[in-house]
Amino acid sequence: MKALKIPEATVTRLSVYSRHLAQLIKDGILTVSSGEIAMGVGVSSAQVRKDLAYFGEFGTRGVGYNVQDLYSHIMRILGLNRTWNVVIVGAGKLGSALAVYKGFEDRGFNVVGIMDISADRIGQPLGDLVVEPMENLEQRIHEKNVEIGIVTVPAAAAQEVADIMVRAGVRSLLNFSPRVLKVPDNVILRNVDLSVNLEVLSFNLSFFDRRQ
Amino acid sequence: MKALKIPEATVTRLSVYSRHLAQLIKDGILTVSSGEIAMGVGVSSAQVRKDLAYFGEFGTRGVGYNVQDLYSHIMRILGLNRTWNVVIVGAGKLGSALAVYKGFEDRGFNVVGIMDISADRIGQPLGDLVVEPMENLEQRIHEKNVEIGIVTVPAAAAQEVADIMVRAGVRSLLNFSPRVLKVPDNVILRNVDLSVNLEVLSFNLSFFDRRQ
Repeated sequence: MKALKIPEATVTRLSVYSRHLAQLIKDGILTVSSGEIAMGVGVSSAQVRKDLAYFGEFGTRGVGYNVQDLYSHIMRILGLNRTWNVVIVGAGKLGSALAVYKGFEDRGFNVVGIMDISADRIGQPLGDLVVEPMENLEQRIHEKNVEIGIVTVPAAAAQEVADIMVRAGVRSLLNFSPRVLKVPDNVILRNVDLSVNLEVLSFNLSFFDRRQ
Repeated sequence: MKALKIPEATVTRLSVYSRHLAQLIKDGILTVSSGEIAMGVGVSSAQVRKDLAYFGEFGTRGVGYNVQDLYSHIMRILGLNRTWNVVIVGAGKLGSALAVYKGFEDRGFNVVGIMDISADRIGQPLGDLVVEPMENLEQRIHEKNVEIGIVTVPAAAAQEVADIMVRAGVRSLLNFSPRVLKVPDNVILRNVDLSVNLEVLSFNLSFFDRRQ
């Protein structure tokens, strides 16, 4: 599946805007300007207008945006006007943290299963879930129509887990292992290696030092 | 601190290449071609050559790269020819998972402290660490010369935590909260919101569906 032309940074900021708008709705606020959104989330108002412009005209000049309309529109763009069922494979500390991560459920991502191969972990409760054996993975994917799989196993096991998920019909993978995974063209893959995030920082810190 | 011209995707792949090269060194392999690296990590050999070309000439045509030299060079580029001390603020499930995340130490990131405001969490052991009260944060940063701070607190507390870290001399922040943080120009900020990662997937899945 080809990457879209919308920059990922824009998608990421839309996600942030939508959280801010949700708060405004709670606070009973009906209209908002790009400047107010910008101030609320800490980016420039030009950036807000540019990001929203990717998706057509929303606001009325001098009046601003209808908060509820803008919120609904952004949530629809992000695919969050529905819920998504998610499975996690790998019930180590990271997988366990993700299984009970409040932020997922708040945004419509339901973790419907977490699997592991370790006998020590199978059967352990995690919030409303219980760690299941790997043998349950395909059945859970079919039964719950799971479209998103999260991989939190060691690098050596990651490709095998991805293959099983894809074969069972998962259409997108969030990969937390350091392994570069191969998936068919019709599957969306996103890599989140937590060490890599620190390495982007150390790269930038070092580059800055070298220029001193 | 301005973002560098090297694409972040390249930095991310360098990180992956370096892991593969470390494995080759362990296996006693002395030279490697771009095609072999490419196959090992699952990208094209043209991509490998392009990524390495950002940093000058490495290989010898027809012979390939000296594995140890290439590894050392990439590690130096990434700023991983030294260790970095890291503090984490927020000892919830995610902060706790990060505090004992093996991948950090393997790459030279030493978590030297984890702080929280909750009396329930303070004093809890986490690997070699013990959760400390917030009052210890500045002292720990000074004493251990901490240059990287990880923020795993709820959105409402994130800016205050970032401000304390920056005031104490932290030069870069990895932010796991959904809050967009404001930091001075000389501080490097990288946001890792785990829900946002899923939202990039749901955005792409939905976009694909809309085109059917």
